[in-house]
Amino acid sequence: MGTGDALPHVVIVGGGFGGLSAAHALRRLPVRVTLIDKTNHHLFQPLLYQVATAMLMPGQIAAPIRQVLKSDQRASVILGEVTRVDTGSCTLSVATPDNQMDVAYDFLVIATGVQHSYFGKNQFAEFAPGLKTMPDATMVRNRILEAFEAAEAEPDEAQTRGLLTFVLVGGGPTGVEMAGAIAELARLTLKEDFRRIDPRKARIILVEAGPRLLANFDASLSQSVAERLRRMGVEVITGRAVEDIDENGCRVGGEFIESKNVIWTAGVAPSPVAGWLGLPRGKVKVRYDLSVPGMPDVFVIGDVAYYEQDGKPLPGVAQVAMQMGEHVARVIAARLRNNAPPSPFVYFDKGNMAVVGRNFAIFERGSIRFSGFIAWLIWSMIHVLSLALPNMRMGVFLQWVWAYFTEQRGSRLIVDPKNFSKPESTVRSA
Amino acid sequence: MGTGDALPHVVIVGGGFGGLSAAHALRRLPVRVTLIDKTNHHLFQPLLYQVATAMLMPGQIAAPIRQVLKSDQRASVILGEVTRVDTGSCTLSVATPDNQMDVAYDFLVIATGVQHSYFGKNQFAEFAPGLKTMPDATMVRNRILEAFEAAEAEPDEAQTRGLLTFVLVGGGPTGVEMAGAIAELARLTLKEDFRRIDPRKARIILVEAGPRLLANFDASLSQSVAERLRRMGVEVITGRAVEDIDENGCRVGGEFIESKNVIWTAGVAPSPVAGWLGLPRGKVKVRYDLSVPGMPDVFVIGDVAYYEQDGKPLPGVAQVAMQMGEHVARVIAARLRNNAPPSPFVYFDKGNMAVVGRNFAIFERGSIRFSGFIAWLIWSMIHVLSLALPNMRMGVFLQWVWAYFTEQRGSRLIVDPKNFSKPESTVRSA
Repeated sequence: MGTGDALPHVVIVGGGFGGLSAAHALRRLPVRVTLIDKTNHHLFQPLLYQVATAMLMPGQIAAPIRQVLKSDQRASVILGEVTRVDTGSCTLSVATPDNQMDVAYDFLVIATGVQHSYFGKNQFAEFAPGLKTMPDATMVRNRILEAFEAAEAEPDEAQTRGLLTFVLVGGGPTGVEMAGAIAELARLTLKEDFRRIDPRKARIILVEAGPRLLANFDASLSQSVAERLRRMGVEVITGRAVEDIDENGCRVGGEFIESKNVIWTAGVAPSPVAGWLGLPRGKVKVRYDLSVPGMPDVFVIGDVAYYEQDGKPLPGVAQVAMQMGEHVARVIAARLRNNAPPSPFVYFDKGNMAVVGRNFAIFERGSIRFSGFIAWLIWSMIHVLSLALPNMRMGVFLQWVWAYFTEQRGSRLIVDPKNFSKPESTVRSA
Repeated sequence: MGTGDALPHVVIVGGGFGGLSAAHALRRLPVRVTLIDKTNHHLFQPLLYQVATAMLMPGQIAAPIRQVLKSDQRASVILGEVTRVDTGSCTLSVATPDNQMDVAYDFLVIATGVQHSYFGKNQFAEFAPGLKTMPDATMVRNRILEAFEAAEAEPDEAQTRGLLTFVLVGGGPTGVEMAGAIAELARLTLKEDFRRIDPRKARIILVEAGPRLLANFDASLSQSVAERLRRMGVEVITGRAVEDIDENGCRVGGEFIESKNVIWTAGVAPSPVAGWLGLPRGKVKVRYDLSVPGMPDVFVIGDVAYYEQDGKPLPGVAQVAMQMGEHVARVIAARLRNNAPPSPFVYFDKGNMAVVGRNFAIFERGSIRFSGFIAWLIWSMIHVLSLALPNMRMGVFLQWVWAYFTEQRGSRLIVDPKNFSKPESTVRSA
C-alpha cells in the first residue's frame, strides 16, 4: 500500500465531528490513519433540520469525507459498515459496498454517535420519522411538503385539518428548531402558493413531556423560547407525554390530536458500540484518557462515550466530540513517544445555542445568557463558519441571505425515491 | 373556489417546458388554468446529466411549479397523476397523494413528454438505468460514486477494472454529455481522493449503434465531438449495437465489455397519451393548430406530439415544446373571441447545441456551425439564463465558476434512499 506501511495504524470509525477532528489532529503524528464511515459524507447535523424544512439542499451541509481528507496522504477512507470488532487480534470486519474486508489496527477510535430512540416503542417509527441521517431529512421534507399538496386536493374538511397539523414530539433543540422552521414555511414561504387552502392556518404543535422546553438551558431561556414560538403561532405543550402514535395522529395526555405529520424529535440512543466491545448496553464509560477500561488501545469519543466532569456526564454535542478527538491524538502522541500520558480530558464549554426561526436565538455559557436578534446573528455566523468546506460556507451564506429577503426557501423538492422513470412497457407493445 | 369560476377552464397536464410555456402564455387570457403534474417541480432536463455526475445539486435545477405560478391568481396547481381522460364528458381522473379527484376541462393541453425506452428489452432496466427524472439522476450519481468507493476496497484486479469501467449506451446528446462529465469527474475531481486506485485510469466507453454520434447535427460537428471525447480519454465506438446487458457488463458487436456501470442514454418513447385518447400507440399526430384530429378542444404539445414541418417530424427538444405552448394559447384566444384560427404552427429553430466537458461545445443553426470555447461560453450563458427562477440562475452560475477554477464538484453525495436511520432495536433491550 505504498509509503507509510510501517507506521502505526490508527483506525477511526465514524466521520462525524469527533472522527474528523481526530483525523485532523493525527495529521501531525507519524501514523497512518484509516477512517471508516457508512456514508461518504460528513454531515453537518446542526443544520439537518433546515434540509428537512426545505431551506437548504442536502449537498450544502454534507462534505465528502474523501475531499476533506484528500491532502493528507497518510489518511485513507473506506466507505463501509463495521460489522465486528475483535479486540484480541486488533481487527475490524468491514462490509464494503461490494465486498467484505478485515482491517487491522494499532489504535482504534470509535466515534459512531447516536441513533434516535423510540424508548422501546418502535411501532411509532412508521408514523413518526426521526431526524438523524440525510435520507431521514429528505423523507421528512417530502412528507411536510406533500401534506400541503394533499390538503390542497382534499375535499373533506376534517381530513384537510389533519393534513395541515404538524406535531413535533420532543422539545429539545431539534423539536424547537423544527417547530420554528415549519411555522415560517407555512406562514411565509407558502402563503401565496395555494388556491383552496390557506397554509397560514396550519397548526404546529410542539409537545414536551418534561416541565419545560430545552431542559439543558436555563429556565429563563426556555421561557423566552416558548414565548417566541407562541408568537409565531406554535402551540407549545409541556408536562404531557405522547402516549400513542398511529396513522391518524397522536394521543397527548389523554387527548387525541388528528395529524398526518407527527415527527419524532425526542430521544437518542448510542450506536451499538458496547456490543462490539462485549460491554453492557448503552454508552461506553471511558477512562480519563478516553480509552475503554482494560483496552488501552481502544478509544471511544463523542456522543457514544460516557464521561463525567464535575459530577455530571458531558452532553452529546459537537463541541465535546471535537475536543475529545483532539485529546485522543494527544494521548496517542504520548504513547508513541513513550511519554507520560497527558492530563485527563477536560471539556471546555464555549457556550450553547438554539435558534427559533429567523431573527431569534438563545445563547448560554455559564452565567452569561442572552437571546434575540444578536444571538441569532452570532448563531448564523458560527454555523456558516463551522461548515467543513469553503464552497459549503459560501453556499449556505448566500442561501440564507437570499431567503431572508425573499422569504423563499432553497429546496422545495418532493422527490419520491421510488419514483424512477418507468421504461416504456413491453406488454403494451405486443 | 372564489373568483374566476365562471371563466373557461384550461387544464394542462405536465409541468415541463411545454406545459409551463402554455401556462405563462394563457395568463393574458380570460381563462382559469389548472396545471397537473406528477411531481411538484419543473425539471430543467438539459442539465439533469450534471446532477447525475455530481456537478449540480437536485434543487438547483428543479423549480417548484407552485412557486413559478404563484403570482398568477387564476392558475392553480395539482400534484397528481392523470389516470384517465374522458373526452366525451371532458373530464380527467387524477390520483392525488391521498385521494382521487375528477377535473372537468373546457380545453385540455397535454404536455407529458417522453420516458426512456429499452426498445422492448426491459430486462436491461435493472442493469442500465436511464436518465429522465430526478430520482433517476440521483440514483445514477449514487452508482457512479459508489463504483469508485467499491473499487478502492476491492482486492481483486479484474473486479476493480469492471467497477472502473463506465459504458454509455447511446451517442445522442445525453450520452455525449455524460461521457464528458464522467471523464472530468474521474480525471480531475477525484484524482487525489483515493489511495489504492487511480481514478484517472477509469475506462469510459460511449457506444452508438448508428454510424456517428449526435445524428441530429452535421457530420463535421459529430466528428469534432468524437475527437474531443477521445482527447479526454473516452473510447468512442460507433456502428456497433449493444446486444446484451447483464450485471457484469454488456456485449457490443460480439465483444463482452466488463462493466459494473452501464448507463442507458439511448431511446425514448412517448408517455402513454395515445392510450388515454383511444388512439394508436406512439406519438400523437396533431393538426396544424396542435389539436388532436376529431377533438378540437384537446391539444398535444412537446415531445409527445407528432408534427411535420418541411416534410420532417419536429425534434423532441425544449424549444419546440415551448413554442407549441405559446401557439396553443393563441389558438385558444382565437376560439374564445370566435376569431379565425391563427395561421398553422411553424417552429422557428434558434439553433441546437451540445456540450463536451469544460471549454467545448458545438452549435448549429441551419448552415451556421461552430465548436469550441466560444460555443461553450454561449452554451453556459444560455443554460444559466433559461433556468426558471432567479435563485437557480445565481446558484448554478456560482457553482460553475467555482467548479471551473477548483475542479471540484458541487454534490458528491451518496445517499441511499433506503438508508433511513434505524431506531434503537427493541429486541436487544429485552
